[in-house]
Amino acid sequence: MRKCYFDHVATNPLRPEVLDAMMPYFKEDFGNPLSLYDLGMRARNAIEEARNEVAALINAKSSGIVFTASGAEANNFGLRGAALGKQNQGKHVIVSKVEHHSILNSARFLEKNGFVVTYLPVDKYGLVDLEMLKKSITKETVLVSITLASSETGTIEPIKEIAAITKERNVLLHTDAVAAAGNIPIDVKELGVDLMSMAAHQFYGPKGAGALYIREGLRVVPLVYGGIQEGGRRAGTENVPAIAGMGKAAVLAAQDMAARAGHCKKLRDKMIKGVLTIPNVFLTGHPENRLPHHASFVVEFIEGEAMLLMLAMKGIYAASGSACSSKALKSSPVLLSLGIPTGLAQGSIVFSLGKDTSDEDVDYFLEEFGPIIDKLRQMSPFAKGWGGEGDKCYTG
Amino acid sequence: MRKCYFDHVATNPLRPEVLDAMMPYFKEDFGNPLSLYDLGMRARNAIEEARNEVAALINAKSSGIVFTASGAEANNFGLRGAALGKQNQGKHVIVSKVEHHSILNSARFLEKNGFVVTYLPVDKYGLVDLEMLKKSITKETVLVSITLASSETGTIEPIKEIAAITKERNVLLHTDAVAAAGNIPIDVKELGVDLMSMAAHQFYGPKGAGALYIREGLRVVPLVYGGIQEGGRRAGTENVPAIAGMGKAAVLAAQDMAARAGHCKKLRDKMIKGVLTIPNVFLTGHPENRLPHHASFVVEFIEGEAMLLMLAMKGIYAASGSACSSKALKSSPVLLSLGIPTGLAQGSIVFSLGKDTSDEDVDYFLEEFGPIIDKLRQMSPFAKGWGGEGDKCYTG
Repeated sequence: MRKCYFDHVATNPLRPEVLDAMMPYFKEDFGNPLSLYDLGMRARNAIEEARNEVAALINAKSSGIVFTASGAEANNFGLRGAALGKQNQGKHVIVSKVEHHSILNSARFLEKNGFVVTYLPVDKYGLVDLEMLKKSITKETVLVSITLASSETGTIEPIKEIAAITKERNVLLHTDAVAAAGNIPIDVKELGVDLMSMAAHQFYGPKGAGALYIREGLRVVPLVYGGIQEGGRRAGTENVPAIAGMGKAAVLAAQDMAARAGHCKKLRDKMIKGVLTIPNVFLTGHPENRLPHHASFVVEFIEGEAMLLMLAMKGIYAASGSACSSKALKSSPVLLSLGIPTGLAQGSIVFSLGKDTSDEDVDYFLEEFGPIIDKLRQMSPFAKGWGGEGDKCYTG
Repeated sequence: MRKCYFDHVATNPLRPEVLDAMMPYFKEDFGNPLSLYDLGMRARNAIEEARNEVAALINAKSSGIVFTASGAEANNFGLRGAALGKQNQGKHVIVSKVEHHSILNSARFLEKNGFVVTYLPVDKYGLVDLEMLKKSITKETVLVSITLASSETGTIEPIKEIAAITKERNVLLHTDAVAAAGNIPIDVKELGVDLMSMAAHQFYGPKGAGALYIREGLRVVPLVYGGIQEGGRRAGTENVPAIAGMGKAAVLAAQDMAARAGHCKKLRDKMIKGVLTIPNVFLTGHPENRLPHHASFVVEFIEGEAMLLMLAMKGIYAASGSACSSKALKSSPVLLSLGIPTGLAQGSIVFSLGKDTSDEDVDYFLEEFGPIIDKLRQMSPFAKGWGGEGDKCYTG
């Protein structure tokens, strides 16, 4: 049976070149980077080389990169650390309603610690309203955090425009670029962000390595206290192999990004066109301004999980919303914030393509997906009385 | 040139069997553990198997193991999370003066958040005074954190006796077992601890994997917020290969612990005996009640770093205190708390042996170490006027 991995936003396979770059640090160069002898120095050099490589991917200074163990840790560190670092100037933070759980739950942590948080609404495509953002900023506001691109809807937010607003008002801007970094071009200087989160496994690097970009001179309260690793900003013995792998993955991502994005976009567009021929299936997120490898839909009368299981039986791997909540079995708050009704939001399904996705994979998927939906709708109590009669259907 | 790695408390080489156990999750089984299809399930199963294996090493319930990215993260999570979870009952925490930076700096974080912290003194061997502990516990005390064994002095604390005291007074006990776990037998039930930190790379597992043991039913406020990973207690896409490696390392550590400890202790005792024939060199930490692979000294008139560099030129790798502060060039607060004078504490050196350390390694080291000390003392401005005349020397 053909295997079609359409879940690149959940995680990616490791590129063999990345694993090769990691191997010395699992073997002969196993030293602690803080040790003074040659073994330690080689580990230290590997980290600094990776720091340069990750910085180059986003046009940052190397000194602005702090390695973490995950995108979630980078989001916690960035949002909480920057807010706590500025709390003497004010205790108001703004995030959007389409943020990842690691941002939303970090925002709740801040609320428990005396901060006021504004949750910005979005339009039907998931785009943050810039006028609303301007109105929401008060004298107490110290930090805004808006995702660069949502892994659930694929929508790319207008971060450059947002940064112009925050900069003018002297407010910090953090962006969660976990789904975007390594997949679309990012230049932190051009964007004008102060902090940005990323994760290696989103661009064919290893799990266990993430990074927070911190603009020079910015004070961010640590999340993990301890030794002097990462300039005292993030303690713990460094995961040298994973960090070296993140560096290599960053180099490779920069090299093939344009070709990979073009390849994915072409197949993704074909996929969207094919899927939308199925009755009562709707694209979620922005039709054009979205991650090039990302297609997301809501399918009426069916639950996302049922589709996932039927697809998996055909060797097709997809997601129903964020991986971090895939077992939580609730309508995604992100989709609800786009104005999608609860019932329909439960029919959420996300396909994300990768460099190895082929035309044949998409053809195979399109052949299988329609019949799966038909079959599930025949079994669905919600679809009772529905038989293709358009007037009984949600028309968005 | 012979290479003698005597820095197992800084980090350990990965056992080849451990790397083998990790490899599938870098390759075919790369899925996100939260994904519903088979790839995700295999990753999920790997994590749960590792959880059983790590739990077995310390006689815990599997549900009590929360994976982290490092021992430092486990210490931050354990100390801060347990204290914050109990803050409605009181805001007093007790730690010892021989704790690792990740505990001491987490304690400072608590102080900034309204807690009062007592730093318990220790005796000349680094042992916590139990009477002092009893006196320090007040109605406001919610948590005590004492290391199981110090990586700087090797001294093993009387955790079972400490647990009896804290239990009687209804106070939680966390222990930092990062240096101890996998190296000496630990049974959390017998010890009676409520929380315990560990790190895989301390027992031939990978960097990037640690764990916090949490006694059943205990509320610990998360450090990293986000998705539903680790039962909502620690968010972020799991580092599946590293977690699988930690599980395998735990199995192997349990299997060979007695033999390994016996092997290391024999060579370590020979090392101590040999080193103490050098004039004005003193053992630090407890002479018997210490980690079996650990020998630590202070050498008068010399700085630790100079010894490390001279030893490294002979292929001998050691540490001068905690790896996390090895570049900080200050007298170790841990050694100062044992009553060792500042100048002498700067001559700190720590040797930690491993399963592959040989009798020949120790012989080679003993041949080289004396001449290195002689050479350094000849160059030392502090040793001026000293030429073996015992009366001018520190006599402890």
